[in-house]
Order: sequence, then C-alpha cells, then structure tokens
Amino acid sequence: MEFSSKLLENAVYEMSQLPGIGKRTALRLVLHLLRQPEQQTYHLANALVKLKDEINFCNNCNNISDTVLCEICANPKREASIICVVEDIRDVMAIENTSQFLGHYHVLGGKISPMEGIGPQDLSIIPLINKVKEGKVAELIFALSASMEGDTTNFYIYKQLEGLTVKTSTIARGIAVGDELEYADEVTLGRSILNRIPYENSLKTN
Amino acid sequence: MEFSSKLLENAVYEMSQLPGIGKRTALRLVLHLLRQPEQQTYHLANALVKLKDEINFCNNCNNISDTVLCEICANPKREASIICVVEDIRDVMAIENTSQFLGHYHVLGGKISPMEGIGPQDLSIIPLINKVKEGKVAELIFALSASMEGDTTNFYIYKQLEGLTVKTSTIARGIAVGDELEYADEVTLGRSILNRIPYENSLKTN
Repeated sequence: MEFSSKLLENAVYEMSQLPGIGKRTALRLVLHLLRQPEQQTYHLANALVKLKDEINFCNNCNNISDTVLCEICANPKREASIICVVEDIRDVMAIENTSQFLGHYHVLGGKISPMEGIGPQDLSIIPLINKVKEGKVAELIFALSASMEGDTTNFYIYKQLEGLTVKTSTIARGIAVGDELEYADEVTLGRSILNRIPYENSLKTN
Repeated sequence: MEFSSKLLENAVYEMSQLPGIGKRTALRLVLHLLRQPEQQTYHLANALVKLKDEINFCNNCNNISDTVLCEICANPKREASIICVVEDIRDVMAIENTSQFLGHYHVLGGKISPMEGIGPQDLSIIPLINKVKEGKVAELIFALSASMEGDTTNFYIYKQLEGLTVKTSTIARGIAVGDELEYADEVTLGRSILNRIPYENSLKTN
C-alpha cells in the first residue's frame, strides 16, 4: 500500500498492530476517525493512554480494578476459600454473568504458551500457590480454556500444589445446553459420556 | 457487559465507537494493548491525534496529503486536463495501483446520501465545477461505486455541468477479469452486454 501522507501511513500502521486488524481495515478505521468530529479521536486516544497509565490490578486476585481490592474480593458475602482460576478478565465477566459462582477468582493473566514465549514466571501463579500454602483455600476450580495451553497450565499448577492439602476441580466439559448431539465434536461427546453425572444431580442445576 | 474498572469500561466504549468494532472485539483489542509494552499504546494514541491535528488536504484535488499539493497534482508528467472523480483516498490508492491512469484525481470526500445526512454541500463538488468552469478540464471520469448513492452523486455533478463543455465518462461496469459468467449477477451481466466493446479494443488493453 502506498500512501500520499506519512501521517496517514503512520496512523494506519499503528492501528494495524492490533490483533485481527489488517492494513485495509486499519485504513477504513482511520478514515472513519478523520470524518468524525475531532473529539472522538481525542477521547479514544485519552481513554487508551489513561487506561495504560493508571491501570490497577486487585491485590488479591490480580483482576483489573480501579481499587486496591476489586469489588468481588472486597465483598464479604463471597466465599474466599473457593477460588476459580481463570485466564483473564473476560472469563471473570463470563462466569459472573451466570450468577452461579459465589467464590473468589484468581486471574493468571494468560496461559503457559511456549509458542508465544509465555512461561510460568510471566503469569500470576506464585501468589496463587502462596494463598494455598497459607491454608486459606479449600478448593481450586480450574476454568482455563480446553486447549493444549490451558491443559498445560492446569497441570503445571497442579504439580506445584503437591503436598498441599487443597481440593482441585475443573469445570465440566460436555455438550452445550441446547446443542444437537449429531453436530458435537467427537472429543467433547466422548468426554461427556466418560464424565456423565447421576441423573438426579442434573435436576438440581436447573 | 459489567466492568470491574471504569477506566477499562471507558477505553472499551471509545474503541467500540469505531465502525465494525463491537463491545467484545473492543474488549479484546484493549486487553491486547494492556499486555503489550506501553510504547505501543502511546504510539497508537499519538499517531491518531497527530493525524487528526495536522491532516492536510491537497489544494487542488482534496486528497489527503502532507504538502500543499499532493504528489500526484505536483507531478508535471501527469495530465491535468483529465480528472478522475472518486469518493476517497482508498479509491485513489486502488486506481494508482493499476498504473493505468495518468491524469489527476478529484476526491469528493464521500457520496450524496440522504440516509446518512450527507448532502452535496458536504462534498467537494463546487471546487470541481469551478475547475471545469475555468476551462482547464477536457474530461471527467466518474469512478464512484455503483450504488444508489454513487449514481445519485454522478447525476448531481452531471446536472451541475450543464452548459459547460467537458467530456464526461464513467468507468466500465462488467464481468471481472477471471470471473465465470454463470456466477455473475444479472445486472452486471446485462450491462456488460449492452456496453460491449469492439473486439479489437479489448486486445489493446492487455
């Protein structure tokens, strides 16, 4: 792509550094901003810089928060001894939307991924192990994605917990509610049969 | 979507104001920026603000340019009397890529679209008519998109030119090179038959 303006080229380049935004999309977005009142560009730029400069992470669970303790960790009604281990804030938001979990979270900030150069030291794993060592945790629920990286991360944490007394569990994998069996992939369907639950239990969850 | 941080919520909101970027995608983009070195966010914000503040439009053709006259208008080898009328800089870039056009451009900055509240006064139409009135233009090539808005804009400009001596043409609509006839839409195929060209002419263009 040849640009008639260095300023435009630079803006398009920076925009195209975002994941899933190619050069063409970046150009479309930048041209859109150019057509809008200048306030919109200023607001966007300010919001991004302000977030990056002033971002805080909850001292307890490592979730993004504007306060020292996030709302969930600061809530005395939530059960602090049950911790759901998730990858990032999106997972916290997804689980909170279900209203089915009333414990605490621990946000790792990613998954172990040698391909992307992310090792255990890049994630918030040591604070989690320390919480368990302090004897404050009754159960850890692993809720990472069911991928190679997610499984590796689960297993790494599990090994670190050796010798400590804590119950560990992982969220159920199976056929999504409302899905047709014939369209389910084999691995999921296979797991859902292996990990079948007593019928009476399924009645309680509705 | 409920956010644990106002800063995050604000950044996601501003990002989701961009066309084609929903709340979920905006959150993904913002979280990506949070994981990257802070330089990336600064560079993006600076590039956008700088573009908006210092943007220049070519005095002659209204294209985005860092100089008073854009490179194309400033090039003495280009034929100033043949003007290709386009919607925005993307069309200029697309036509420049073909290396088939050696005249000047005139960038309207949009199309007449009552639905989006864009009227003729919002576009750079008067400067174009003035150029024709000054007798400097031999031919205007309309290269707007083949949509209701594009056709309306073409026709509006055409009416404004009444009584002036200038040749007007529009780019050829037809079956794309390499396309199969059976998959072409009826309107395009119909037009390509009505506007057929002498076979000898098609040999020259390759």
